[in-house]
Amino acid sequence: MILTVTLNTALDLTYRVRSLRPHASHRVSEVVERPGGKGVNVARVLAALGHEVTVTGFAGGGTGREVRERLAGTPGLVDALVPVGAPTRRTIAVVDERTGDTTQLNEPGPQVTSGEWATFQGSYEDLLGAASAVALCGSLPPGVPVGAYAGLIRTARAAGVPVLLDTSGEPLRRGMAARPDIVKPNAEELAELTGSHEPLRAARDARRRGAHAVVASLGAEGLLAHTPEGRWRAAPPAPLHGNPTGAGDSAVAGLLSGLAERLPWPERLARAVALSAATVLAPTAGEFDRAAYEELLGRVAVTGEVSAA
Amino acid sequence: MILTVTLNTALDLTYRVRSLRPHASHRVSEVVERPGGKGVNVARVLAALGHEVTVTGFAGGGTGREVRERLAGTPGLVDALVPVGAPTRRTIAVVDERTGDTTQLNEPGPQVTSGEWATFQGSYEDLLGAASAVALCGSLPPGVPVGAYAGLIRTARAAGVPVLLDTSGEPLRRGMAARPDIVKPNAEELAELTGSHEPLRAARDARRRGAHAVVASLGAEGLLAHTPEGRWRAAPPAPLHGNPTGAGDSAVAGLLSGLAERLPWPERLARAVALSAATVLAPTAGEFDRAAYEELLGRVAVTGEVSAA
Repeated sequence: MILTVTLNTALDLTYRVRSLRPHASHRVSEVVERPGGKGVNVARVLAALGHEVTVTGFAGGGTGREVRERLAGTPGLVDALVPVGAPTRRTIAVVDERTGDTTQLNEPGPQVTSGEWATFQGSYEDLLGAASAVALCGSLPPGVPVGAYAGLIRTARAAGVPVLLDTSGEPLRRGMAARPDIVKPNAEELAELTGSHEPLRAARDARRRGAHAVVASLGAEGLLAHTPEGRWRAAPPAPLHGNPTGAGDSAVAGLLSGLAERLPWPERLARAVALSAATVLAPTAGEFDRAAYEELLGRVAVTGEVSAA
Repeated sequence: MILTVTLNTALDLTYRVRSLRPHASHRVSEVVERPGGKGVNVARVLAALGHEVTVTGFAGGGTGREVRERLAGTPGLVDALVPVGAPTRRTIAVVDERTGDTTQLNEPGPQVTSGEWATFQGSYEDLLGAASAVALCGSLPPGVPVGAYAGLIRTARAAGVPVLLDTSGEPLRRGMAARPDIVKPNAEELAELTGSHEPLRAARDARRRGAHAVVASLGAEGLLAHTPEGRWRAAPPAPLHGNPTGAGDSAVAGLLSGLAERLPWPERLARAVALSAATVLAPTAGEFDRAAYEELLGRVAVTGEVSAA
C-alpha cells in the first residue's frame, strides 16, 4: 500500500454566501464538509485511482470523529490515524457568490503532547513495513517538533521505503537535510527556501540542500523536475480554466503513485500533470474529473534531457 | 422545572483573527465553542442561577453530538433534545482583533422531516407535564411549519403552563395569534411586526394582536413592558460598556424565572434588566457576571403605572 502522513488533518468546510462583507451577518446558503489536510487529499485521489492507501497522522475531538467517519466511507482507503486529546482543526473556505473569490479561515490545529508524538512515531514505523511509498504532507500542529519530518524521512529511508515531502517553511528546510527522494514545493515555497525566483536555478539549489529530486509546481505552466536521472518540464496541452484548489495535492498523488511503481520520470510527470489538470477542470473543488484525466494523460507535453549515466 | 425550546440549536464558534480581509487567508488565533441557539443560552443562564431547567428542540449529526456533549457538562441542565437525521447548524462569529468588530456566518440549520416534527410535538407535550413555565426561542429550521410556535403555544396553554415567545418575522406574527403569556421582541422586531417605530404604541398594538404581555427590549434603555397588570419601564442605573452578545437571552431568562415563580411584574423586570446588564459587563461574550447581577438587582429603576383592576 501507499502511506500518506497528515500530522495536521482538518475538517474542511466550504461555505457559499451571497457577498462577504466584514462586520455584517451572513446567511450561509450551502455547506460542504470533507476530511482534509494535504495528505488526506492525496490519499483520496490515490484511492479513486484504485490504489490501496493508508492515511495516518492525528485526529481528535468531535471534529476528528467527523473526519474519521467520512474516511470510513471512502472505498480503498484505510484509516490509521492516531488519536489525540485536543480537537482536529477546521478550515473554512467562504466563497463569495458575487465575485467567485474565496476567503479562508484556518484554525490552528490541536496541541499534540510528547506522548502522542511518540505513539505516532511507533505506529508510523509499523506502517512502513507494508508501504511501497510514503508522502509526508502539510503543516505541523502545535507541539510537534519543527524537525519532525527529518526524523520521519530517516525512518522511511532506514526501512527502504521511498519518501516524498510536501511542506513549506522551516519544516521543509529541516526535512531536506534528511535526503527525501522527492520534494514538491510550489514556486513560492521554492523561492522562500532558496532565495531564487528563477525556478531552474532554485530547483538545482534545492537538490544541493539534500533532496534527491525536486519537482516544482509552476501553476498553469505545469511541473519542473530536477532529478538524478535528468531534468524535465511537463505541461498541460492547453491553458485550463477552473478551480485550482487541490491541484497541488493531485500532482503529489501522481508523483507518489509513480514513485511506488518506480515508473520512469517522464511517465510520473505526465501522470502528475494530467491529474492536476483534471482537478482544475472538475466541477467540485478538490475532486478530479476521471474522463478528463484519462484523455489528458496521453497529451501532456514532457520535454527535457536525460543525465549522462 | 423550567422548559426551554430551541428548534434550531447551534454549535456556536467564536474565532479571533488579526484583521478580517475578504479574499485573504487568515490564521485563527483562538477558537471558543459552545452550544447555542437562544433557548439554550436562556437555559444556561437559568441553570447558573440555580434553577432546574430542561432543554428541548432538535440535535443531529456530529455538530449535534458536540452540542449534547457540552450540555451534559452543565450542572442543573437536563438535555431532552430530539434526534434528527440532518446535522445541527454551526454559527461562526469572527472577531477582528484590530477593530473589535464581529462578522457573523450562520449555517442554515437541518432539514427536519414531518416524522421528526411529529416526534418532537409528542415529546414536548410530555415535558410540559413537569414544567412551571416554557420559553419558545429563536428561528425555525427548514421543514418545520411557519405556524409551529402557534401550535406549541396552544399545547402549553391547554396544559396550564405559562409560555414566553422570543422569535421574529412570520413565526412571531403567527405565534401572537395563539395568545402567549409574554412576547419579548426587540425594538426592530416590534417595528417589523406592527409598522410603528414608537415603542409604547407598538407594544400596545402587539398586545391587541394576541399576546397577554409585551416586553420590548430597547438596548441600553432597558425594557418596556405592556401587560394586563400595568405598564412599566425598567433601566440599568447607569450606562453600560461591554459586549451586548447574549444580553437579550439573559433578559428572557430573567422574565421566564419570574413567570415560573409568578413574581409581580416590577420584580420580573428588575431581574431581567439586572441579568441583561450583568451579561454586557461580563468579560466573556454570552456569560453573565454574578457579582454584578446581585449588586445591580436592587439598583434597577422600575417606573410605571398599575392598571385599574
